[in-house]
Amino acid sequence: MLKTARGQLDGVIRMVEEDRYCIDISNQLMAIESLVAKTNATVLKAHVEGCVRCACASGDASIRDEKLREIEGVIDKLSR
Amino acid sequence: MLKTARGQLDGVIRMVEEDRYCIDISNQLMAIESLVAKTNATVLKAHVEGCVRCACASGDASIRDEKLREIEGVIDKLSR
Amino acid sequence: MLKTARGQLDGVIRMVEEDRYCIDISNQLMAIESLVAKTNATVLKAHVEGCVRCACASGDASIRDEKLREIEGVIDKLSR
Amino acid sequence: MLKTARGQLDGVIRMVEEDRYCIDISNQLMAIESLVAKTNATVLKAHVEGCVRCACASGDASIRDEKLREIEGVIDKLSR
Repeated sequence: MLKTARGQLDGVIRMVEEDRYCIDISNQLMAIESLVAKTNATVLKAHVEGCVRCACASGDASIRDEKLREIEGVIDKLSR
Repeated sequence: MLKTARGQLDGVIRMVEEDRYCIDISNQLMAIESLVAKTNATVLKAHVEGCVRCACASGDASIRDEKLREIEGVIDKLSR
Repeated sequence: MLKTARGQLDGVIRMVEEDRYCIDISNQLMAIESLVAKTNATVLKAHVEGCVRCACASGDASIRDEKLREIEGVIDKLSR
Repeated sequence: MLKTARGQLDGVIRMVEEDRYCIDISNQLMAIESLVAKTNATVLKAHVEGCVRCACASGDASIRDEKLREIEGVIDKLSR
């Protein structure tokens, strides 16, 4: 997905250089934003599924609490 | 916070009835959106701190996994 | 739409008082956010269709430029 | 700004290949999202300042209305 996003970003940079219509450029930028957001969600869900679950399963309360605090930080950032 | 949001919403409904300037109404609506988003983040962080932590501490893998799956659902919704 | 949002907000306040499940409260809060955002878009589009169009049609450059500057402010706020 | 975003995106692709910590990758992705959103706002404001203003100043009602309809489309997309 990130390589697709990079391809799209290269495309937008070309569009700007070719002085293409602003609304078309804007639509492409919003498509990139949405793809980056989707990639971010995928990364975070894999993190919960993997690292956070392992930390919780480990029985080590301080590692678990650290991971859960990180998730709270993620919630804050995504909520802005 | 929710009662503040309700007070603001009552205010906006009055602004619409009094036919106030659209941009002022829009600014108020965006302030409400932001307050509701902040309340949501607070609720979700308390949930992680409380329910999710307890579920993880319980040692019951199926309860823990259910809570973590819910968190993944939250990440998806917040990412839209 | 705003009265629907107020009804939903009253519903969430009751859910909090009844100590309902956090994830259900969060889902309701996100539904309200989305409804307020939709209402805001409706208000802003009516504003463009009405006030901004009139200002542009009036032939008065300073009124027109003021409305367009307001739209730029809206774009900034919506982009956050 | 777009070349900065591309540099950051290349950086994230490397981070993924090097199997870096998910939360660090996620933070970088959110920084890119925010930069792309800011660039989009800049493009759109320049569009209002330039093309939309010209169309409004032209006195041609059908061109003006077309530009204003595009702005309504932008408001819808930004509100999601």
